[in-house]
Amino acid sequence: MKTVNLYEANGFSEKAFKKFLVHDSPYFRIINFNFNPGQELPVHNHDLEGQLSLVVLEGEGLFLGADGATIPARAGDVCISDISEPHGLRAKTTLRLLVTIAPPL
Amino acid sequence: MKTVNLYEANGFSEKAFKKFLVHDSPYFRIINFNFNPGQELPVHNHDLEGQLSLVVLEGEGLFLGADGATIPARAGDVCISDISEPHGLRAKTTLRLLVTIAPPL
Repeated sequence: MKTVNLYEANGFSEKAFKKFLVHDSPYFRIINFNFNPGQELPVHNHDLEGQLSLVVLEGEGLFLGADGATIPARAGDVCISDISEPHGLRAKTTLRLLVTIAPPL
Repeated sequence: MKTVNLYEANGFSEKAFKKFLVHDSPYFRIINFNFNPGQELPVHNHDLEGQLSLVVLEGEGLFLGADGATIPARAGDVCISDISEPHGLRAKTTLRLLVTIAPPL
């Protein structure tokens, strides 16, 4: 068992979102992204089997999908997407996101 | 893409922790557990390949391990455990936990 605290392990940057690799194994990859208001994880996808979860720990923003689609994102939201499906996030406020990818890319 | 808000989808119970299945697929299973103070997910394990993450969304408590081991748990903590390794959680305050199991049992 190993434990990490995201609030201690990762901060924020004025330049771009800050990425912190929480865990990587053959089973899943877990990444924490911290955004300042206006920062964005651009819509992207990979032609691979698997799914990912996007969990908003703090803040408000928009989940981004294919063809400019947006879905409101706020603390407590869990968004599930196929890895092959376009996905992204734009922050309106300071926002902490936890992404879990299974299996890892 | 599908989205669910944990704060809306799951509440608390005086009797025991409240469990809400967020997602289940061949890739991972995601479960939200809500605890009142003193409630506990007892230490358990399964003799299976894979890992799980325990993410504390809100509150304070203890991660439980083998042989009575405890690790402080608070908001922002991510605990990674093998599925075969004993794991559990005891809440000191109202606590929201998100568990991701990959691959699902």
